[in-house]
Amino acid sequence: MTDLHATAERAARIPADELRRLAARALETVGVPETDARTTAEILVFADLVGIPTHGVARLAPYIARLRDGAFNAHPDIQIRRRGATGIVAGDNGLGPVVGRAGVLLAIEIAREHGVGYVGCRDSQHFGTLAPYIMTATEAGMVVVLGSNAFPTMAPWGGREVKLGNNPLGIGAPRPGRFPFMFDIALSVVARGKIRQAHERGEAIPQGWALNRDGEPTTDPLEALQGFVLPVGGHKGYGLALMVDILAATLIGGVASPGVRSLFQQQDKPQKVGHFFIAIDPEATIGRQAFSAALAQLEAEMRSTTPFDPQRPVMLPGDREGTLYAEQMRDGVLLQPTLLNQLERLARGERVTEIASF
Amino acid sequence: MTDLHATAERAARIPADELRRLAARALETVGVPETDARTTAEILVFADLVGIPTHGVARLAPYIARLRDGAFNAHPDIQIRRRGATGIVAGDNGLGPVVGRAGVLLAIEIAREHGVGYVGCRDSQHFGTLAPYIMTATEAGMVVVLGSNAFPTMAPWGGREVKLGNNPLGIGAPRPGRFPFMFDIALSVVARGKIRQAHERGEAIPQGWALNRDGEPTTDPLEALQGFVLPVGGHKGYGLALMVDILAATLIGGVASPGVRSLFQQQDKPQKVGHFFIAIDPEATIGRQAFSAALAQLEAEMRSTTPFDPQRPVMLPGDREGTLYAEQMRDGVLLQPTLLNQLERLARGERVTEIASF
Repeated sequence: MTDLHATAERAARIPADELRRLAARALETVGVPETDARTTAEILVFADLVGIPTHGVARLAPYIARLRDGAFNAHPDIQIRRRGATGIVAGDNGLGPVVGRAGVLLAIEIAREHGVGYVGCRDSQHFGTLAPYIMTATEAGMVVVLGSNAFPTMAPWGGREVKLGNNPLGIGAPRPGRFPFMFDIALSVVARGKIRQAHERGEAIPQGWALNRDGEPTTDPLEALQGFVLPVGGHKGYGLALMVDILAATLIGGVASPGVRSLFQQQDKPQKVGHFFIAIDPEATIGRQAFSAALAQLEAEMRSTTPFDPQRPVMLPGDREGTLYAEQMRDGVLLQPTLLNQLERLARGERVTEIASF
Repeated sequence: MTDLHATAERAARIPADELRRLAARALETVGVPETDARTTAEILVFADLVGIPTHGVARLAPYIARLRDGAFNAHPDIQIRRRGATGIVAGDNGLGPVVGRAGVLLAIEIAREHGVGYVGCRDSQHFGTLAPYIMTATEAGMVVVLGSNAFPTMAPWGGREVKLGNNPLGIGAPRPGRFPFMFDIALSVVARGKIRQAHERGEAIPQGWALNRDGEPTTDPLEALQGFVLPVGGHKGYGLALMVDILAATLIGGVASPGVRSLFQQQDKPQKVGHFFIAIDPEATIGRQAFSAALAQLEAEMRSTTPFDPQRPVMLPGDREGTLYAEQMRDGVLLQPTLLNQLERLARGERVTEIASF
């Protein structure tokens, strides 16, 4: 995003609504029902709006390729099973955003009734970032702890085989009248894409990002790409990734990350991604107003911290996303012209072969 | 622990039961009721059994000092409020293990009924490691996500003031007939104690552990001690620590980590620690047997990974703890003779002034 925003003069601006319509139309050309197309478009565009274009409309091309190949099910028979304050959403290999939206809505519904709801989604696909699901839950007044597994990109700690996803994990909390508290991280130190960028620029990478293929620390991006991206905090990130797998797959009969497929390989097979949502209604604990006041106090405490660099005050999760969201809702979403062109072709039902795999 | 086990010949061995009796007696000398003394003893000794002596019976001396000073309440009026599948335990400044045990038991009770239970504890104190609470939940067949806030030891990301606890976070899962899956981490890269040890040995610390007081990376342990211990993964650990604060304090009317007091300072005031437990009953999702099979499969997948070092196979969270637990239950708990001597004096009601602050 930084790059895109730094070179704004070379990027196109398109109103969010128009981008959503374009994305939905593209999905409808391959048979996705209108409602599901709209949901998916909304969720992908939200990622672009908050500055995470790697999980935005750039993903439409691979989604559509997989819908064409039948690996993604355009007409899933999504099964929802509730028991007490728990729920399982069996996604029938439908689009990730469609299955994910069903999951977060179910968690909200359960939390309204019971104060807390735990929902796992299985047989889903890549579902974008956690951000749009956080938005849905917090707009309903809920705190939400959430995560998703992902295809393997990391080795278990001490191992030399890639077997574990970087399994994103996050939390959202409502801030009435403001953009929500929004925390969303992957459990690798950095995305592989950043190492690839360093390689292309001929730059070294910081120590701690990756190991070479012999398990030694390296600052050479090529060695790193042939080696292993490290989990955040070594064994700590390894354990957190397993935690997400247990909640998003193992507990609900889904596929844990060693068995999840990439969006960009084996295009004829479904990915089998799992997600989870734990929604908690502050109304059931101390009341929404009291919670908002307490969260505002915690925030103020953080923001009042003296920063190392006076130009860079201490921020909170969601600050950057909220700023970009407001800016792009007002001025339009920044898109690379080649991507916009691709979307227009997809919306006309044309086949697109160039697929960016970030 | 490594040190203690490496120098086993200089350490004492004491049967776990005897150690529990000794610890309970020490607590009773300052007026803690028998049941609460037993609970606290059991929880502290469990930490020693699984190889985390920094959170074991070594904590009795400060607990007892604070009970004497009235900062810890020996006779708390613990209030439990349930609403739907949520609960709040108001600890009335009782001993952390007593309040924490009440919290995990309530979460289990709720999860039995609703499939999932979220419980927050406030007005508690230092409550040891997460391990014994994981044991309680998993013995009841539950998966448990849990955490606690802690007195401030880290700066918010980009800040130069210590304001945030290293807020431990973890998950446990039952493995019938075996030691549970047990994951328990602090959200700092390392404990301050490790930097202190490096300083005492005159060794450099690895880059990435800490910043100096000007916010620059340092490998000098003294500079690090005068500076800032880093959160795991930088901004990622910062956000995770806030996540724990929201669940363990903000959501339940408790005190977030900026306001939590250390066990070793301001001894006349309660610490005001908060904890949280999310218990999930696999019986409500796919059944306990199916869950066990799925977890065993995920484990087998990890263990079958080719390791970098053939002598060090890939491990799972809880492996090390389970081995030490079995060994020390059989052979007795390894204790430093000075600590054993201190416990014996505490059990006789003597005052002890030397308090190790790890």
